[in-house]
Amino acid sequence: MNDIEKIVENTIIHNWARHFKHPTTQFNKLHESDAELIKLYQDSNNYLAITIDTIAEEITTGLYQDPYTMGWITVMANLSDLAAVGSTPLGLVISVSVESSRDEKFINQVAEGMETACRTMNTFILGGDTNITPATALTACAFGLVPRNEALTRRGCKAGDSVFITGGLGTGNALALCRMAKLPDKYFPEQLYRPVAQIKEGLILRKYASCCMDTSDGLLATLDQLMRINGVGFEVNCDWNTILAPEVIKFCEQTKTPSWLMIAGPHGEFKLLFTVLADKEKELLATNKNLYFIKIGTVKQTPDISLILPNKKNVNIDVTPIRNMLYNVGGDFERFIKEFRALGKKWGLE
Amino acid sequence: MNDIEKIVENTIIHNWARHFKHPTTQFNKLHESDAELIKLYQDSNNYLAITIDTIAEEITTGLYQDPYTMGWITVMANLSDLAAVGSTPLGLVISVSVESSRDEKFINQVAEGMETACRTMNTFILGGDTNITPATALTACAFGLVPRNEALTRRGCKAGDSVFITGGLGTGNALALCRMAKLPDKYFPEQLYRPVAQIKEGLILRKYASCCMDTSDGLLATLDQLMRINGVGFEVNCDWNTILAPEVIKFCEQTKTPSWLMIAGPHGEFKLLFTVLADKEKELLATNKNLYFIKIGTVKQTPDISLILPNKKNVNIDVTPIRNMLYNVGGDFERFIKEFRALGKKWGLE
Repeated sequence: MNDIEKIVENTIIHNWARHFKHPTTQFNKLHESDAELIKLYQDSNNYLAITIDTIAEEITTGLYQDPYTMGWITVMANLSDLAAVGSTPLGLVISVSVESSRDEKFINQVAEGMETACRTMNTFILGGDTNITPATALTACAFGLVPRNEALTRRGCKAGDSVFITGGLGTGNALALCRMAKLPDKYFPEQLYRPVAQIKEGLILRKYASCCMDTSDGLLATLDQLMRINGVGFEVNCDWNTILAPEVIKFCEQTKTPSWLMIAGPHGEFKLLFTVLADKEKELLATNKNLYFIKIGTVKQTPDISLILPNKKNVNIDVTPIRNMLYNVGGDFERFIKEFRALGKKWGLE
Repeated sequence: MNDIEKIVENTIIHNWARHFKHPTTQFNKLHESDAELIKLYQDSNNYLAITIDTIAEEITTGLYQDPYTMGWITVMANLSDLAAVGSTPLGLVISVSVESSRDEKFINQVAEGMETACRTMNTFILGGDTNITPATALTACAFGLVPRNEALTRRGCKAGDSVFITGGLGTGNALALCRMAKLPDKYFPEQLYRPVAQIKEGLILRKYASCCMDTSDGLLATLDQLMRINGVGFEVNCDWNTILAPEVIKFCEQTKTPSWLMIAGPHGEFKLLFTVLADKEKELLATNKNLYFIKIGTVKQTPDISLILPNKKNVNIDVTPIRNMLYNVGGDFERFIKEFRALGKKWGLE
């Protein structure tokens, strides 16, 4: 159940990565970190953390329609990877590819989304590259420093550790479901989706987390990936009022959407999911009362994922078909939702 | 004549860049450097040099047809920017966007081109991102260190400086013309186009060059950009046997292509163009006999570009229409070649 290559996305990445030799100066292995960690020079006390991410499918599929969102997410998705390794940003470079038909207003709004995201996080776009392409694709590369002995990775959690998230989940999936099911925008306006990279939280977690990963692909995919990397399992307490963001709870109520879809869909929310040695949990919470750390479960020995539902039933689920579904249905969103919900019914989640 | 915004590409870049605030830790200004130069921390002796470049138009227009070339150039174009600031690479991250129809063989060949380029330059692809898009677009971001007092930029040349290139030019334009004019591949096989980033040369030039820029957009565009940045002009001695690479001279002979097109076209060859104080020229050449530095002219006070033709005639040209031509003709290559050659005839270059 926990072979990492059972996930189509991991296989695609592996098919590229297997060609590439890595330097001895690189700390992380494939899949094991949200950002690459590399020694700047032999006796440097810091790693350079560096990550690259392109926003393309979210635009071509119509998930993002507001150019400001496109720009905002391009920056935040990259900063979120830095947050997950405990780094603070030094800056970003961007490569922006747009159709020749795009007007100045479009450019201005994308750029404004990018710049406002940078101002929010107190970082900077240093420069970049522009291209004319058949479809918009926005790439950023973010980089920063992190002390070598404090860098966070996806590897390191042990049975008994507590599992936390840094905020309410589901905003990404609420927006995606709204689009896929062709619900009126008013139920989840795109402008509600303005995730903020958890840089401040990552900085604190350097001293506490046994592993850390951002929830850019949704909660279940994040847990599933950590399961495969660490050979452990997770038990999650599905108290929806605790786990989901308030606007997501409202969305579910108004549209009669089953709550579990908000943690199961592939469009995440850029919070951090991290694990903490049970011994350190009290100290973490006591010394960081102004930050919002939500305990959602525990790490367990057996490599599977158990959900404790509000009715106290305990359901063991295999996330593999969920994670591979987008690849299997192509772009057929109707089929996607149908197959998704069929799984939920099978598992007794709705 | 030397307003930087008369060049469409510079305006496109400006329209993005004007939205972005820059940190005080960034050394270079817009247009003034091939890579961004940023302090890692307050008292660091080094800049981090970082650059990002996407290969997209070269693929959609059919200029590159061999996936190996696509991968090779994605890596080399970025390393070339590092070379131009005198940096050595620490590594690259990549974001690869391909059509869902692309098979494993295509991926393997792109990756092989990337990895062989890395092996050639003794550097590494550390990680990255994959996407499914309507057209292939390959992005890399390369980074490295350079001592703060030795970083090279595009700014700094003065009238009287000598102008050098680090090798024979024209390979990029030979390939491009071969494609645009629909000549048989045999006249310039794509596999002949394997530019190597001039990292070793950039390292030497730290001590000598008054300014430096790579020739990724061809010689005339490079000189034109340096003219606009520095407010100086250039006189170039068009001794084709000295300036052009041997395979380009052969291409011109066999296809009766006027030589000037090989320095005027927009598809360059990733050599370095640099200027040196006349006093330092002898020392540069005497202490680096194993490197191939070719003197092609001098920096002059008046901000224009003079070509001294093989027949000793001196022609003053305005590169503006050449640099903007690709934008003006859209994708119409026949018109492109026609307008290009009309300019050459007007200037007495053919």
